[in-house]
Amino acid sequence: MSAAGQPAVAAADWGTTRLRVWLLDDAGNVVAERRSDEGLFSAQPDRFAEILERQLTEMGASAALPVIICGMAGSRQGWVEAPYATVPVSLAEIFGAAVSVPWTKRDIRIVPGLAQRDPASPDVMRGEETQLAGAATRLGPGRHLVCMPGTHSKWVGLVDGTVTAFQTFMTGELFSVLSARSILSHSIGSETKVSADSPAFLDWCGNALADPVAVETSLFRIRAATLLHGLQPADAAAALSGLLIGSEIAAAKNRFAQEGGAVVLIASGGMQELYQTALRLAGFTVATVDADEAVRAGLADTARYFGMMNIENAG
Amino acid sequence: MSAAGQPAVAAADWGTTRLRVWLLDDAGNVVAERRSDEGLFSAQPDRFAEILERQLTEMGASAALPVIICGMAGSRQGWVEAPYATVPVSLAEIFGAAVSVPWTKRDIRIVPGLAQRDPASPDVMRGEETQLAGAATRLGPGRHLVCMPGTHSKWVGLVDGTVTAFQTFMTGELFSVLSARSILSHSIGSETKVSADSPAFLDWCGNALADPVAVETSLFRIRAATLLHGLQPADAAAALSGLLIGSEIAAAKNRFAQEGGAVVLIASGGMQELYQTALRLAGFTVATVDADEAVRAGLADTARYFGMMNIENAG
Repeated sequence: MSAAGQPAVAAADWGTTRLRVWLLDDAGNVVAERRSDEGLFSAQPDRFAEILERQLTEMGASAALPVIICGMAGSRQGWVEAPYATVPVSLAEIFGAAVSVPWTKRDIRIVPGLAQRDPASPDVMRGEETQLAGAATRLGPGRHLVCMPGTHSKWVGLVDGTVTAFQTFMTGELFSVLSARSILSHSIGSETKVSADSPAFLDWCGNALADPVAVETSLFRIRAATLLHGLQPADAAAALSGLLIGSEIAAAKNRFAQEGGAVVLIASGGMQELYQTALRLAGFTVATVDADEAVRAGLADTARYFGMMNIENAG
Repeated sequence: MSAAGQPAVAAADWGTTRLRVWLLDDAGNVVAERRSDEGLFSAQPDRFAEILERQLTEMGASAALPVIICGMAGSRQGWVEAPYATVPVSLAEIFGAAVSVPWTKRDIRIVPGLAQRDPASPDVMRGEETQLAGAATRLGPGRHLVCMPGTHSKWVGLVDGTVTAFQTFMTGELFSVLSARSILSHSIGSETKVSADSPAFLDWCGNALADPVAVETSLFRIRAATLLHGLQPADAAAALSGLLIGSEIAAAKNRFAQEGGAVVLIASGGMQELYQTALRLAGFTVATVDADEAVRAGLADTARYFGMMNIENAG
């Protein structure tokens, strides 16, 4: 507990490639923020405590400040494993399943990821469940379809605060490996920044939304269009992005919302713009939640669940 | 012209990563064979003649022996550009469009690739048109659907010796980049050899044949199945292979043969077995032509077209 404006908790999103730490006051407002490249890939198993303490010290956090962490730090290769919570699962159950880090004087807890154990559609997430929680407590009860784009995009069905099902699409990673490592690299070069109002993005996205097998049939067309029709690098990148995002949305719509409807988009920056445009093209009405705000809100909600923040001051 | 058993022509398949040269007699039989890694990627523009002459000398070819070449040596980045022939195009027109290499004393000709210039489905091939020609002259007239699996699989509609339409699928390249460069590499490791009778191959292929959006929805399931259900590396590789090949066949069937039917498979080795199995699973009857024999036959047919071989001895 602390006065407004004073740090009540440190909130950390510790992923595979980066670590972000915020000091939050009782209202969930950001008092301080740090970003680092010390993600799971660079942190050795025995260095998590050292990395975190250094970040906290440099932010001026007190030695007793509690910490809530989400992301890959809770994986088997991370700091302390926070075993997956199995869907269907309520957000309160996710918070409650956060594990304590045992060998430190601070109260440090790591939020678990989610697992869908159905052998026909196995799936996992780590980190996105906290974004989801942050957005969901603000969306209120009812049925929501949530899209969280990224390296591994997640689509989630949420009913009255319970995650009922989810589906991962490797859209961001496909864009990354295909644009850099496949024959399409000869068409795209280094022009990988895509604008949501690019005609090539809109065209290829529209085609992918209309054709369920577009990824299979259209990937090589990007290369052929370069050779035969002079497709320029920036347009080739936009075409690949539109094709992959359109295909993701078409497949997700097919699984979760055959009648179209509303979708909650949790995203930031350029990704937010691309998905907003593509989702509207697919006939969805879109409510957007900023991804950074969502993860902080989810971490703050978890801190409140454990009594680390003064609920009377909650934002 | 030469006696049986004597070289009548040198036939070369000169691709991006390798060069294969055969000396063929009038009947198209192989008198000598050489393979080299001096593909387009390693041959400098001014070294094609030197590389070819060295191979021919080491095979004991006479200084006047004519040469027929197919593959990327005819691309803009190759030796001499053999501009794409545009579909629909007959096999005789393809042969006739072979370009002479001007600055040599031998008669050297390079078979052109094919282009499909329709802006809605642009596509190109180089090298496969020669395999196709080699198989097609043996298949006879009528309507044929041909599948040529590989890094970039080609499906071709052939009517009475005319290529009417074709479609490239990046199946082999997707397997390669996803197994080595994506998060799936953590599931697959170095176990990339796949057997056609692997239950995982059959399962994932069957699922992909039944579900048009399988690539989108199922790629990450391979990773999740490793984490949640202990999927082993060899099975993860088989799953990825089955998923990608099944998705290719489902999309090709949708475009070329909605009623199923017969397919001519031009392939060799392990690839032949995987596609034979998957095509039968998709309900096709399969006639198989060896890919190496097909490319040699196509090169021999081109040589005959140019009067380089004694037609009376044709095999």
